[in-house]
Amino acid sequence: MSFYNKNILIVGLGLMGASLGQALLKRRQYESDFKVLGYARKQQTVDIALQNKIVDEGAANLEQMVKQADVIVLCVPMLSIESTLENIKPFLKEGVILTDVGSVKDEVIRASKKVFGQMPRFFVPGHPIAGAEKSGVLAANSELYDCHQVILTPDIYTQNEAFKVVESIWRFVGAHVVEMSVEHHDQVLAATSHLPHLLAFSLVNTLNHRSENREIFHYAAGGFRDFTRIAASDTTMWHDIFNCNKDALLEVLNAFTDDLDKLKDAISNNDEPVIKSVLSEAKTAREYFTEVLQARSNK
Amino acid sequence: MSFYNKNILIVGLGLMGASLGQALLKRRQYESDFKVLGYARKQQTVDIALQNKIVDEGAANLEQMVKQADVIVLCVPMLSIESTLENIKPFLKEGVILTDVGSVKDEVIRASKKVFGQMPRFFVPGHPIAGAEKSGVLAANSELYDCHQVILTPDIYTQNEAFKVVESIWRFVGAHVVEMSVEHHDQVLAATSHLPHLLAFSLVNTLNHRSENREIFHYAAGGFRDFTRIAASDTTMWHDIFNCNKDALLEVLNAFTDDLDKLKDAISNNDEPVIKSVLSEAKTAREYFTEVLQARSNK
Repeated sequence: MSFYNKNILIVGLGLMGASLGQALLKRRQYESDFKVLGYARKQQTVDIALQNKIVDEGAANLEQMVKQADVIVLCVPMLSIESTLENIKPFLKEGVILTDVGSVKDEVIRASKKVFGQMPRFFVPGHPIAGAEKSGVLAANSELYDCHQVILTPDIYTQNEAFKVVESIWRFVGAHVVEMSVEHHDQVLAATSHLPHLLAFSLVNTLNHRSENREIFHYAAGGFRDFTRIAASDTTMWHDIFNCNKDALLEVLNAFTDDLDKLKDAISNNDEPVIKSVLSEAKTAREYFTEVLQARSNK
Repeated sequence: MSFYNKNILIVGLGLMGASLGQALLKRRQYESDFKVLGYARKQQTVDIALQNKIVDEGAANLEQMVKQADVIVLCVPMLSIESTLENIKPFLKEGVILTDVGSVKDEVIRASKKVFGQMPRFFVPGHPIAGAEKSGVLAANSELYDCHQVILTPDIYTQNEAFKVVESIWRFVGAHVVEMSVEHHDQVLAATSHLPHLLAFSLVNTLNHRSENREIFHYAAGGFRDFTRIAASDTTMWHDIFNCNKDALLEVLNAFTDDLDKLKDAISNNDEPVIKSVLSEAKTAREYFTEVLQARSNK
């Protein structure tokens, strides 16, 4: 455990931050192993975090918390990262290690360069591939990261020690850590996460506007429920993600609408071979994905 | 139980047919209450159905089964309905009642009119809003219809007695029965079921074709899993549905792509108010849908 004896500060006690705190405290063997500190804008959130064993100590005062922190995990919405970095900068301890959980790594790099002049060597950008439709401190789940992937996107200047500490924190809460470039991360996430969310939001809206209006929701079944579950996700978070990962998202969205147009034409023209090949290929690929998930949970 | 003492024949022992048989037998109090007969093209399927308490009697011989049947439930793919009706027609008993589980009611009406010259008064078209990605007799699930909706689409000439019998069969296996016009049914299902499946198939294909190819599936998480789960569904069934409900499907697909284009423009132009209003509205509508589902399961 390369974060032994350290004070880990979680900035932002929403679903991601609160789940990390709860996961750390639940797995800690001795109180002396490490300490979890928490900052939230509202004292009420801090109080809930204390009551629910999410943090050992907390405050709505950022300065007070940052001054004590050896490791800082930023768990704030994407578009708040820049202002948060500005606010913590004056109080950072010598030797501090910084990481985050933002869904778009390019934006984190941009914000860091703006605030620090360059990407600090002690900052290891990270992104746990985990989430839920629920948000807020009350949605904390100590198993949120268990068997999930965490992508870290260090560059060649990142301190090896900082990388190791961040990696060991995520492994401690059950996650599998992988390394990737910022650009590749943002493209992969645009395809596997941001686009599906965009489609789910858009589909629910289309249905909501039809003449039958909400009557149709009464006749929707399991497939629709699962397909659109993610449309109940936090709206600020998703606005920020769409905004920050615009280029990669629009690129994969265009590829998607091109393919969709082809399928639409095939249906219009009763082109059975094309329709059947699209469906079979999708089924095979989806089944491959199921195997990947199963292999991971058996690890 | 208005099907007391009757022989119910299930034609086609795939997921839908086999689940109905198993649900009926599981809930039957006395063997004398009613009998479930089964027909499948392959004797092997019939044997599995007998072993798994899906039917009381079965055969790969359609004539032999139809001659004994008081109620026939067609559980074959959409595009096999016409030929199945042709094949059973010569052997139908006086007073027989016919129903089906097809996802597109307009196609069932068309096929019936072609085979019988007009829509038989003893035929009550039906559609249980239930399913799974698994298919085939081994996927049988006696609880598949429990708390699910079954839509029946009789017309003014449909025999009231036939309607009552079909309704009571579905209620017996735990379903809620609602009545709807053929046209309305096909529009509602295009929106809530056929379009989501089309998008899921298409999205999985788009991702599968990208340069990263299947690597990206390794970094996809829960949202993607749920969103695309339905892309593993039976391909023949979905080809038939897209083909048979083409008009209603293309109409709602066009509405969807129009809305999607607007959202794409808003993201391109960083139009925060538009993006946020789309997301909030979708979240509210999706939460309303969750309430509908909860209210139904508490009934």
